[in-house]
Amino acid sequence: MLVVMKRGATQQEIDAVTRRIEEFGIRPIPLPGAERVAIGTFGATSREAAEAVEALPGVAEVVPVSRPFKLASREVIPDDSVIAVDGVDVGGAAPLAIMAGPCAIESRQQTLATARAVRAAGATVLRGGAFKPRSSPYTFRGLGEEGLDILAEARAETGLAIVTEVLTPADVDAVARVADCVQIGARNMQNYALLDAVGEQPRPVLLKRGMSATVEELLLSAEYVLARGNRNVILCERGIRTFEKYTRNTFDVNAIPLLKRLTHLPVVADPSHGTGKWYLVAPIALAAVAAGADGLLVEVHPSPDHALSDGFQSLTFDNFAALVAQVGAVASAVGRRHALARA
Amino acid sequence: MLVVMKRGATQQEIDAVTRRIEEFGIRPIPLPGAERVAIGTFGATSREAAEAVEALPGVAEVVPVSRPFKLASREVIPDDSVIAVDGVDVGGAAPLAIMAGPCAIESRQQTLATARAVRAAGATVLRGGAFKPRSSPYTFRGLGEEGLDILAEARAETGLAIVTEVLTPADVDAVARVADCVQIGARNMQNYALLDAVGEQPRPVLLKRGMSATVEELLLSAEYVLARGNRNVILCERGIRTFEKYTRNTFDVNAIPLLKRLTHLPVVADPSHGTGKWYLVAPIALAAVAAGADGLLVEVHPSPDHALSDGFQSLTFDNFAALVAQVGAVASAVGRRHALARA
Amino acid sequence: MLVVMKRGATQQEIDAVTRRIEEFGIRPIPLPGAERVAIGTFGATSREAAEAVEALPGVAEVVPVSRPFKLASREVIPDDSVIAVDGVDVGGAAPLAIMAGPCAIESRQQTLATARAVRAAGATVLRGGAFKPRSSPYTFRGLGEEGLDILAEARAETGLAIVTEVLTPADVDAVARVADCVQIGARNMQNYALLDAVGEQPRPVLLKRGMSATVEELLLSAEYVLARGNRNVILCERGIRTFEKYTRNTFDVNAIPLLKRLTHLPVVADPSHGTGKWYLVAPIALAAVAAGADGLLVEVHPSPDHALSDGFQSLTFDNFAALVAQVGAVASAVGRRHALARA
Amino acid sequence: MLVVMKRGATQQEIDAVTRRIEEFGIRPIPLPGAERVAIGTFGATSREAAEAVEALPGVAEVVPVSRPFKLASREVIPDDSVIAVDGVDVGGAAPLAIMAGPCAIESRQQTLATARAVRAAGATVLRGGAFKPRSSPYTFRGLGEEGLDILAEARAETGLAIVTEVLTPADVDAVARVADCVQIGARNMQNYALLDAVGEQPRPVLLKRGMSATVEELLLSAEYVLARGNRNVILCERGIRTFEKYTRNTFDVNAIPLLKRLTHLPVVADPSHGTGKWYLVAPIALAAVAAGADGLLVEVHPSPDHALSDGFQSLTFDNFAALVAQVGAVASAVGRRHALARA
Repeated sequence: MLVVMKRGATQQEIDAVTRRIEEFGIRPIPLPGAERVAIGTFGATSREAAEAVEALPGVAEVVPVSRPFKLASREVIPDDSVIAVDGVDVGGAAPLAIMAGPCAIESRQQTLATARAVRAAGATVLRGGAFKPRSSPYTFRGLGEEGLDILAEARAETGLAIVTEVLTPADVDAVARVADCVQIGARNMQNYALLDAVGEQPRPVLLKRGMSATVEELLLSAEYVLARGNRNVILCERGIRTFEKYTRNTFDVNAIPLLKRLTHLPVVADPSHGTGKWYLVAPIALAAVAAGADGLLVEVHPSPDHALSDGFQSLTFDNFAALVAQVGAVASAVGRRHALARA
Repeated sequence: MLVVMKRGATQQEIDAVTRRIEEFGIRPIPLPGAERVAIGTFGATSREAAEAVEALPGVAEVVPVSRPFKLASREVIPDDSVIAVDGVDVGGAAPLAIMAGPCAIESRQQTLATARAVRAAGATVLRGGAFKPRSSPYTFRGLGEEGLDILAEARAETGLAIVTEVLTPADVDAVARVADCVQIGARNMQNYALLDAVGEQPRPVLLKRGMSATVEELLLSAEYVLARGNRNVILCERGIRTFEKYTRNTFDVNAIPLLKRLTHLPVVADPSHGTGKWYLVAPIALAAVAAGADGLLVEVHPSPDHALSDGFQSLTFDNFAALVAQVGAVASAVGRRHALARA
Repeated sequence: MLVVMKRGATQQEIDAVTRRIEEFGIRPIPLPGAERVAIGTFGATSREAAEAVEALPGVAEVVPVSRPFKLASREVIPDDSVIAVDGVDVGGAAPLAIMAGPCAIESRQQTLATARAVRAAGATVLRGGAFKPRSSPYTFRGLGEEGLDILAEARAETGLAIVTEVLTPADVDAVARVADCVQIGARNMQNYALLDAVGEQPRPVLLKRGMSATVEELLLSAEYVLARGNRNVILCERGIRTFEKYTRNTFDVNAIPLLKRLTHLPVVADPSHGTGKWYLVAPIALAAVAAGADGLLVEVHPSPDHALSDGFQSLTFDNFAALVAQVGAVASAVGRRHALARA
Repeated sequence: MLVVMKRGATQQEIDAVTRRIEEFGIRPIPLPGAERVAIGTFGATSREAAEAVEALPGVAEVVPVSRPFKLASREVIPDDSVIAVDGVDVGGAAPLAIMAGPCAIESRQQTLATARAVRAAGATVLRGGAFKPRSSPYTFRGLGEEGLDILAEARAETGLAIVTEVLTPADVDAVARVADCVQIGARNMQNYALLDAVGEQPRPVLLKRGMSATVEELLLSAEYVLARGNRNVILCERGIRTFEKYTRNTFDVNAIPLLKRLTHLPVVADPSHGTGKWYLVAPIALAAVAAGADGLLVEVHPSPDHALSDGFQSLTFDNFAALVAQVGAVASAVGRRHALARA
């Protein structure tokens, strides 16, 4: 870490800081500058040491040097992780993973029809929520266990792998019995009890970025799962909250190449939540692929204007099929194998 | 709701929208304008109806008219709710509630010393975390049940009421056995399983605003608790995330009078997280009181530079005592009875 | 507009609102709902009317229906505008426009070398600042008129068209004598005297989005230029300010297809400012093209680590040439003719 | 500065960085850590050096140590600056400065009536815009020179000092002939030609924070004015742009004590723009005073619902008088002399 002293810091204050650093077993190196003194350190430091020093008199700020994530870091594990979701590889040199399906599992018929349609168009993973987080207690919160049964049936019929969200530790076992990949939603990115719970079961985890989480915080949440022993984490960029009023969220396309640089974990993109408008989904999906995404997570509904949730951001079957075709062309243009229907 | 059609919308598109609205049992009223047609409605609508219509061809946007929160709304319950936390009233004409204590319960000695000091200075509620949410899995996550025992002892000795955080539904019973008020932290504001769980137990709930939650989303999360039957919710403004780099969060002082206008629930302020810098805590605490806050939640530590968590934003005992004295003067200036030590 | 009354609004308040609306020559339509009354209007309204009504007792909010921009609107002018920058067409079905060059004009040698290199790689427009806006008064603010002379020489030698920034109305004539396209920077997006001034001269205008401007505000600033009679405005997305700390700005890729939907004006992307990191420029440039951008504006420098400004976000000649090749492939994949060197 | 190398940086890369630092005449100090090497420096550095180093291979990031503002810094000038606006002192131990008036100068009658009313209530400075920045070119842009004449007449009659906005360098002389204090609006905070121009004339300058400017950027813009020789700058917090939809802006109350710590310049608050809702103006004004503001800038209009601009955030005469009375009580509570009518 680097400790920056205030311009008028006294020698006593500087000495107190160096002593406090030494109490943590770290060697301080004073660095007098033109305007003020800074103090560098040799060797490993800790967040506790940084916070302790930051509160001392005469200290202007403390700058950390080490990245706070370890198991998620590409500096620690340089090679791309490739994560198998029931046989569908995600990440590295694997073909682009296309995950698609309805926002919420509403009925057997809606789910099976969608599963068939997205499989025919080239998807290999079916997405759909049995447990739905909704900002109002008065809206549809999902079919629950009945929804899980419908997903299991869809898998049996179509062969698609299943990704579905879990909202609370008590449901992890039930969800993991059906899901090939367990999703942590944006609102739960920092629900640490839930991260611990999915870290202790064997299914891969799709971790969505919180709506105002930094890239570093996303990686720290992944670190929770990795630290519990589950090394199969797929990150998902799904848009952040900004001041813009025409869109529901602002898709942070920068995050895709930035994450690919900082971590070895695969990164997929959710252009449906990332925009909140069905007519923006296709161009943003293409943009995400061009920027290096390892996969897409897209909301598709047989009749978007009759959906119980997120209809305004869901694609019709036809629009989804058209998107997959375009995605293949862009994937080829950036040197990635494109989506193929599962054998 | 108001449905705004695109400028070039056809009569067929307009007719389809009015038919779809009628399917929801709502009466549509076309409103031709200079540039385009809008369609208003008579009677109650629903979010489902709004979303269904938004996806139809020719629709530019759908504007909701009803507020989505009900039990939290001052339009529904005009009079201030006054919530008793083990005999300490919060809200309405009650004196300003001063809640103070360490970020984390670190030891018996640290906690009891802090409890005595904040009581002597005028606090009536002791805050302190036994279960701590931390962005990194490698930092101190609290003493857990042992911390709850220490809090119980501090209450027995000082008579202070206790507010402490719960992180997951499985811990609600244990926390509620000790806590006089159960805290939901910012990261869990939209952890709906947890909101349901605290809504089904009898202790008052202190609900912190999420770091990028809108005021409306905060009220909808309160609505979750209220809808489960627990009508004792205290809202807490604790700063939002912005682009500013000098402070940890931006305390949203506007939210205080805005919430007091929109809801009958009490509103308290957390200037410690709202700034992240101990030297900003006192002026922001005074500002919150001047803006109409019903109470304060302040981090205090016997030795902030040795704290295991948030030392850089904690006040010393002396600084806290000085703050309480100033707070009393500002409270009087705005016509509120000020903090008094508990008899 | 739609006027939403408070839940408990009295009949007198409702009547006062309808009378006030009538004073503006607008016909009000009361719309009683389940919870409250709303008031729609027939015919054209105005911002003045909306603001006047918003201040009346009993009014909860006023929702505008008409878009506030006209000449920039695709609803008014449905066909893509194609804007000629000294013979280089931008927008519509024109090939992707590649604009590249140094952040600042530092010397004759640096500028000519860069001009030759970007032309060889496929650029058709040279960008470079003679007048530089810098947040500190103590950093390099550009060569001024001498920089303009260097740009003129670069054009004479390479045939590249020139785009360069103007900072203040007094410099518009001098800049427009040399520039084939006059740039308004992000900090000046709402400098209305400057928008008026460039609206009254004949050169095309490249208008950059302000760092926290909404898409609507960008279009309103374009409207200033259009309303003065200059119909040749090219919009530029260059990243917005968010809470993210790893990147300088967050490139708002959503804005590209959203703008293409809302306006007939061409939209180009600046991935250099949109990321602030040279290693993110290429993936974000490709993303912008995949999302439908009509062109790119890229910082290129012969020796980025010796640049006087923005070296950390500039590409080397080699990296730029590699980018242009990739851009062509992505452009083809989304059905756009790709960049060609100028004959 | 501190240069942080990547984890796997080679010795050659480290050597290249130390050599590059030496080329700028700065002495580098390598600091090997547990994970990676950092390089500190002795002596003065520059932004150019930092940017040059940031682009070198193997560099992870560069952290500046010196603050980039000098003349505005309290580290350079420790004592509060007190700035006289035609005899009204602002800052330091001076009484709270109350500046009030209409958003826009609409007519002689409206302006004189408001001037008399705000003077009677305790204001000492009259605010009002003759030149108005408006986001749409189709709304009222102010009376211009005629408005300046009206302001001059209001001063002659009431003795109030005048603060009014200037939008472009060409108008600085005309505005400064009438204004006792020249205002730079939020949209022009980084209009450097305008900052230079007001820095070269003798009137005090009221500099408003840009709507997404950091506190450091505000101080750098002040530095522009100070560096041109005008040492009389008053800073104004007026709200920042966030995701919140109920308010027009989010008043950043943290900025007040933070600025008071970082700079010797006076800081005033604009609760009218800081909220955008008349019913939030009074509580936020009181909050700003409690947080340490040196003055207030408040919009007042004889008939807010007939105002040509910003009526929804203007106070009536009665509400303003009530606010001034409350402000005095809060000012006393925090140990500041309160507003007094000018003798």
